[in-house]
Amino acid sequence: MRATIFVRLKRDVLDPEGDAIAEALARTGASGIESVRVGKVFEIEVAGRTRQGVVRELEKMAQELLANPVTEDFEIRIDD
Amino acid sequence: MRATIFVRLKRDVLDPEGDAIAEALARTGASGIESVRVGKVFEIEVAGRTRQGVVRELEKMAQELLANPVTEDFEIRIDD
Repeated sequence: MRATIFVRLKRDVLDPEGDAIAEALARTGASGIESVRVGKVFEIEVAGRTRQGVVRELEKMAQELLANPVTEDFEIRIDD
Repeated sequence: MRATIFVRLKRDVLDPEGDAIAEALARTGASGIESVRVGKVFEIEVAGRTRQGVVRELEKMAQELLANPVTEDFEIRIDD
């Protein structure tokens, strides 16, 4: 089973990396960029189990290892 | 308009960060993890223009600034 975990900064957390990218894009001639937020995406292959079991396991992984619960939110998507 | 650019390592490029995460997950008791690949996601707010124009602009940004064309692929999604 293939799953994707998205980890993003919470909405009220400043994103200096995103701001730097927005400025760099403006300097290289891109127009109309209002904001850039940077996150991570983990594409995970998990050996066959039930969809529900996989989601539960991935939630545990995201909470304990992949996301910082103070500053980040995560989202899990099962691709197939 | 809100857009998302996904940047991922090409399939044949090794991902030591993903391998380290897969090992850490196994050590913390996760079972059945076959592989982990790590990518980046850029969430971009672009001031109103046509969808086609935005996609063209984002392709240019991704090629020139956000992705390394030697090792990475990118994918653009317009969210609204």
